Amino acid sequence: MPEAKLSKISTKAPGKLDKDHIKADTAKILEELDELQNLLFAEHKHSLLVVLQGMDASGKDGVIRNVFGKLNPQGVQVYSFKAPTEEEKSHDFLWRIHKVAPGKGHIHLLNRSHYEDVLIQRVHKWVDKATYKKRYEAINAFERLLTKHNDTQVLKFYLHISPEEQQERLAERMQDPRKMWKYNANDFEEAKLWDEYHKAYEDAFENCNDVPWIIVPSDQNWYKEYLIARTVRDTLVKLKMKYPGLKKT
Amino acid sequence: MPEAKLSKISTKAPGKLDKDHIKADTAKILEELDELQNLLFAEHKHSLLVVLQGMDASGKDGVIRNVFGKLNPQGVQVYSFKAPTEEEKSHDFLWRIHKVAPGKGHIHLLNRSHYEDVLIQRVHKWVDKATYKKRYEAINAFERLLTKHNDTQVLKFYLHISPEEQQERLAERMQDPRKMWKYNANDFEEAKLWDEYHKAYEDAFENCNDVPWIIVPSDQNWYKEYLIARTVRDTLVKLKMKYPGLKKT
Repeated sequence: MPEAKLSKISTKAPGKLDKDHIKADTAKILEELDELQNLLFAEHKHSLLVVLQGMDASGKDGVIRNVFGKLNPQGVQVYSFKAPTEEEKSHDFLWRIHKVAPGKGHIHLLNRSHYEDVLIQRVHKWVDKATYKKRYEAINAFERLLTKHNDTQVLKFYLHISPEEQQERLAERMQDPRKMWKYNANDFEEAKLWDEYHKAYEDAFENCNDVPWIIVPSDQNWYKEYLIARTVRDTLVKLKMKYPGLKKT
Repeated sequence: MPEAKLSKISTKAPGKLDKDHIKADTAKILEELDELQNLLFAEHKHSLLVVLQGMDASGKDGVIRNVFGKLNPQGVQVYSFKAPTEEEKSHDFLWRIHKVAPGKGHIHLLNRSHYEDVLIQRVHKWVDKATYKKRYEAINAFERLLTKHNDTQVLKFYLHISPEEQQERLAERMQDPRKMWKYNANDFEEAKLWDEYHKAYEDAFENCNDVPWIIVPSDQNWYKEYLIARTVRDTLVKLKMKYPGLKKT
């Protein structure tokens, strides 16, 4: 993905789209997804890894809840990556991620991921340039391992919001009692590093795009959820999965 | 490592060596190792991964017991890789290995390893040529991840025995009550595939040598143990480790 200048990419749904119509479409897609996930689990041949990245308040939690939340939890697991634990820090940066790679039949969602190691760590200068550049290569090899050695489908979504939308959502967390638990004063400090984060994302997109990044305009949740649900559905449909017949043995 | 023709490499200790002298040397090295391992654990900066490969009865268990067996078990763990479990099979072939990569301060020993996936699987034609060739590349990337992203020292030992020595040891397992538990009739069948295994090993050495293979003449246990102990000692000495001082915080 050469030249992904995030500031040039719209964060909004195309104006001509009708919200109600799209929401109805999404509902239908989610029913298909439910069936496809059951098939994925039953066939036990492929797996799906969904990487969710985006600025604070870009709506990662909402995707997990609204796109994947109704699927059978037996085959869907979520892993959230925050600051590494002492044990994680004592290993290479991909160790904690590889451990939770999905086995056949499973869908794993990464709420933040190995990309944090070339994003927050770079923006805050916890690692030098040589280190995060070396990490791009390791990430590519790792994603190649998953896709080429275990039939794992990897979908990497960047939830793309505008700085105005982010400010509004962060402010909301201070007022809405149902959202206060998400409030973190530090988020406003991080928001000031907007341009540095965008630059780090753009470089990650450019250097780690063997498994392509999907930039999802995410100012409107209904559009974001529609795009992601549709992409996941299309990805699973392409696998041409089949229920196994009765085992003869 | 181009052109490692195993049949051209001696499986024996050089004739001029004195067994008693070497054994005394080994005993001294093991005392040094004990101290070095303590230092590795205390400093918590580097780690060591020891890969043990070799034909059946080449003496991998003996290395674990006699070279590493006296070290503090708090910092030394052994992982034996046999036929993959159902869960392991549902992941990429490196998943079960990466999970047990050593954290800082630790020594992990792999009794067989990810190399089985380009050895036994190839010899028995469970995977095709394209697959095991692709695995070489994945193995190199994986070993690079460990060595370049986490200061892990990786030592890969091939325990090199002659077919005659192997036959003798396998026969011994049928007679020595202390060794019968190791007897497996299938080992004699595997032994017939000697040349195919050697070819597979030679190709693995040639294609996966970024972290270099160390071929250890292993017909005599005293010489094998001496070489391995010395290599591990030298590797740890080179790290110039230091005990951390008192923590001021």
